[in-house]
Amino acid sequence: MDFRGTHIISVQQFQRPDVERIFDVADSMEPFAQRRQVSKALDGAILGNMFFEPSTRTRVSFGCAFNMLGGHVRETAEIGASSITKGESLYDTARVISGYSDVIVMRHPRAGSVAEFAEASRAPVINGGDGVNEHPSQALLDLYTIRKELESRQRGIDGMHIGMVGDLKHGRTVHSLSRLLKLYRDINFNLISPKQLRMPPGIVAELRAAGHKVSQTEDMAKGLHDNDTVYLTRIQEERFASRLEADVYRGRFRLNQAIYTRHCQPNTVIMHPLPRDTRAEANELDEDLNQHPNLAIFRQTDNGVLVRMALFALVLDVVEKAPQHVQQAGWYTGRRFE
Amino acid sequence: MDFRGTHIISVQQFQRPDVERIFDVADSMEPFAQRRQVSKALDGAILGNMFFEPSTRTRVSFGCAFNMLGGHVRETAEIGASSITKGESLYDTARVISGYSDVIVMRHPRAGSVAEFAEASRAPVINGGDGVNEHPSQALLDLYTIRKELESRQRGIDGMHIGMVGDLKHGRTVHSLSRLLKLYRDINFNLISPKQLRMPPGIVAELRAAGHKVSQTEDMAKGLHDNDTVYLTRIQEERFASRLEADVYRGRFRLNQAIYTRHCQPNTVIMHPLPRDTRAEANELDEDLNQHPNLAIFRQTDNGVLVRMALFALVLDVVEKAPQHVQQAGWYTGRRFE
Amino acid sequence: MDFRGTHIISVQQFQRPDVERIFDVADSMEPFAQRRQVSKALDGAILGNMFFEPSTRTRVSFGCAFNMLGGHVRETAEIGASSITKGESLYDTARVISGYSDVIVMRHPRAGSVAEFAEASRAPVINGGDGVNEHPSQALLDLYTIRKELESRQRGIDGMHIGMVGDLKHGRTVHSLSRLLKLYRDINFNLISPKQLRMPPGIVAELRAAGHKVSQTEDMAKGLHDNDTVYLTRIQEERFASRLEADVYRGRFRLNQAIYTRHCQPNTVIMHPLPRDTRAEANELDEDLNQHPNLAIFRQTDNGVLVRMALFALVLDVVEKAPQHVQQAGWYTGRRFE
Repeated sequence: MDFRGTHIISVQQFQRPDVERIFDVADSMEPFAQRRQVSKALDGAILGNMFFEPSTRTRVSFGCAFNMLGGHVRETAEIGASSITKGESLYDTARVISGYSDVIVMRHPRAGSVAEFAEASRAPVINGGDGVNEHPSQALLDLYTIRKELESRQRGIDGMHIGMVGDLKHGRTVHSLSRLLKLYRDINFNLISPKQLRMPPGIVAELRAAGHKVSQTEDMAKGLHDNDTVYLTRIQEERFASRLEADVYRGRFRLNQAIYTRHCQPNTVIMHPLPRDTRAEANELDEDLNQHPNLAIFRQTDNGVLVRMALFALVLDVVEKAPQHVQQAGWYTGRRFE
Repeated sequence: MDFRGTHIISVQQFQRPDVERIFDVADSMEPFAQRRQVSKALDGAILGNMFFEPSTRTRVSFGCAFNMLGGHVRETAEIGASSITKGESLYDTARVISGYSDVIVMRHPRAGSVAEFAEASRAPVINGGDGVNEHPSQALLDLYTIRKELESRQRGIDGMHIGMVGDLKHGRTVHSLSRLLKLYRDINFNLISPKQLRMPPGIVAELRAAGHKVSQTEDMAKGLHDNDTVYLTRIQEERFASRLEADVYRGRFRLNQAIYTRHCQPNTVIMHPLPRDTRAEANELDEDLNQHPNLAIFRQTDNGVLVRMALFALVLDVVEKAPQHVQQAGWYTGRRFE
Repeated sequence: MDFRGTHIISVQQFQRPDVERIFDVADSMEPFAQRRQVSKALDGAILGNMFFEPSTRTRVSFGCAFNMLGGHVRETAEIGASSITKGESLYDTARVISGYSDVIVMRHPRAGSVAEFAEASRAPVINGGDGVNEHPSQALLDLYTIRKELESRQRGIDGMHIGMVGDLKHGRTVHSLSRLLKLYRDINFNLISPKQLRMPPGIVAELRAAGHKVSQTEDMAKGLHDNDTVYLTRIQEERFASRLEADVYRGRFRLNQAIYTRHCQPNTVIMHPLPRDTRAEANELDEDLNQHPNLAIFRQTDNGVLVRMALFALVLDVVEKAPQHVQQAGWYTGRRFE
């Protein structure tokens, strides 16, 4: 696909070469994200970072990615505050905001809202999460992390085994990641969840139709046994009818040092989309693994900046320009990325 | 007037040559706002974008305008969060904030607050809306839009006919726009509203004293008949004693394709300060006009950036400097302004 | 100490030469803070300005200081909105945010939280206030102001007399300022407060052990009598069990023109950390002193920018670089700092 000026709404708009193009560009962003060099590729450009649902982490990650390419960031983090509450349509909001933004990232609680917004927007729109629907930059950073982690272990994505654990029914991250993995060959999906929180049958069918192997189990030990990567998720409390209903499932599928040692392959990569719930009653990914070399959760968020920079660079067509006219970062940057 | 270092508080501080000076400078900002060129005129300068009342659109528009001249934007969008709730005076807030801002835009729910704030400020202050009182950059962008739209139809502001529709009692935008139009010659005002929501008699008297013609009617068909521009407004629900009281008037004066075709001159420009209320019970400006070439509402918001850039450039005295040392915008900007 | 890459968490980490180093660097920032020159020392760097407790003034002051050195600012001002409310640990938040910020300023309502956050952060962290505990940049700007004010009166900090007035039990600013003054010689502390709101005995003991003189009184007249500086504080209502309990003390110790003239030395500097409570029932520092040449409260906030620039420059090691490649500020800057 031609990324120039395109809206990035769903992982389903990508073919495998598109995903690999994004990852190659992400690789080229390392000198900037790791603060060795400063790029001015987007000097003067403006990101409209419109978060109509709170998300400090994702909002700041997109903003930093844009700053690292030299651009300005204007943003909102206030839903109650917006004209939308005065009866304004997404059409109007999009027409207005796209008049003064060169690219827009939008998060909104309603599924489909970002696509509707993009339809009316005069500037390219990147989906920063539209409710239960999609969060494509998260799925991309997850797969990018898998690629990097497996490469450093002399393996690739084709043929890999992945365990997905937890609330697979409501977790949009595992849905989108599955659909990206679908573009590759011979993936083994080990889906571990309570029966009631299984991966939607439609997605399972898609994966199987594409030639992948999917097994589903409630038995953590069995599901963990043979994976290159395990991907933990938190119970999506906000998608349940009540906190009580969510409590039934909370804490049922956990990974900690003891379980990892007993059930996982010694080199299994541990992933989680964050935030993880570290309260005792949940604790789906225990902090006793924090120093474990296979814990990739913070490398995931670091990679998120690279992937978001890549999306901006591709959509705004400055991939070639990013490494030009760079300067050395002139301040203390420590050993943050060693 | 000399704009250098001046506070912009009210449309009443302008004479006609001042307004025309602002518009000429706004014209010169087009290459930057339309993303063909990047200016560094305000490189290093800081805007304090202080919104003590929510307004995503206006806040972001001012911020983008400042970024487009190369400056930094620091801002607040939190009223509950501010020291004002700990009993701090506007005097103190102004003295403090003006110590680290080169120019301040302030919105605040109380009429007169921005003038009081400006009194104490050491940096120039631009009124971003002070409750029922004024929102001068909105009035300027409205008139600037009228000028542009009529020019492209080989007409001018002098002698024009304008229809103003809706809640003319509470709508500060129509009050301020009227006072700007007052500076011109021989304007015909066709004021269309329920009797209870008529334009304040003081303003009508001002207009007549200045030689303009004002007619007031409750008859939409009659009022729409002969205008170069119609300016729709929403019912200012927040100014009524109750939602119920506002409901009496909601939806009574609407413009849609059918009404436009039947009652308006074929070349009548359609304006609205936005947000428009697109809920069925209100819908004062129907979406079936969205593709109409005479619908100027999104050109209004685009023009808002130009007018705000002009105000910054004039107040900070960089009008001559803006077109110097510019660079070409190096990223994809699409066909957003065609 | 070596400031490079260091966390700034507590005034207790400084020795006298460290404090003086900060102040000398702050002096060198004047051309930038007073808008005569623009520095690009931090061009491309990113501040993560993380305010998990509202504070418009402090947040904007840190952000402006970073902009004045040429850097980008990404920020949050939303506690309810953050992942912390979904059960995320400070450890996780710190690991994530420090992946895309070159330095972090953090404010958080819980004492000790910033130190805990810094422990996990890969980038240097500056404490922007952690509840009842510390707010080191405030203490530094207070002492820096004292130094400047006394210097202009041909005096120094050693041997000075300082009156501290109000809620000395809960006011973290007077605690931290006292601990910085402790590093100097022969200070006379005149502590004026209700018996129930006295300075914590531990701090008084520290001061005396370091050779300073401390007197405590409930008699305003007596305590005001002989000081180079008086430092007023507001009743920290949020630290009391109820508003009613705070009301007992509110308004008991006030300074106004009449009291100043009667009880203070004619050249006594008047300070307050702001916000001051200007409501009639509190009004600990009356506005009838607003034009008084010895009122230093707005010079304090101006100095805050200098001190915060100094902290950034020291921690990120760009002190030498700041005055290089500067340009003249090209916009109107008025007479704001005369």
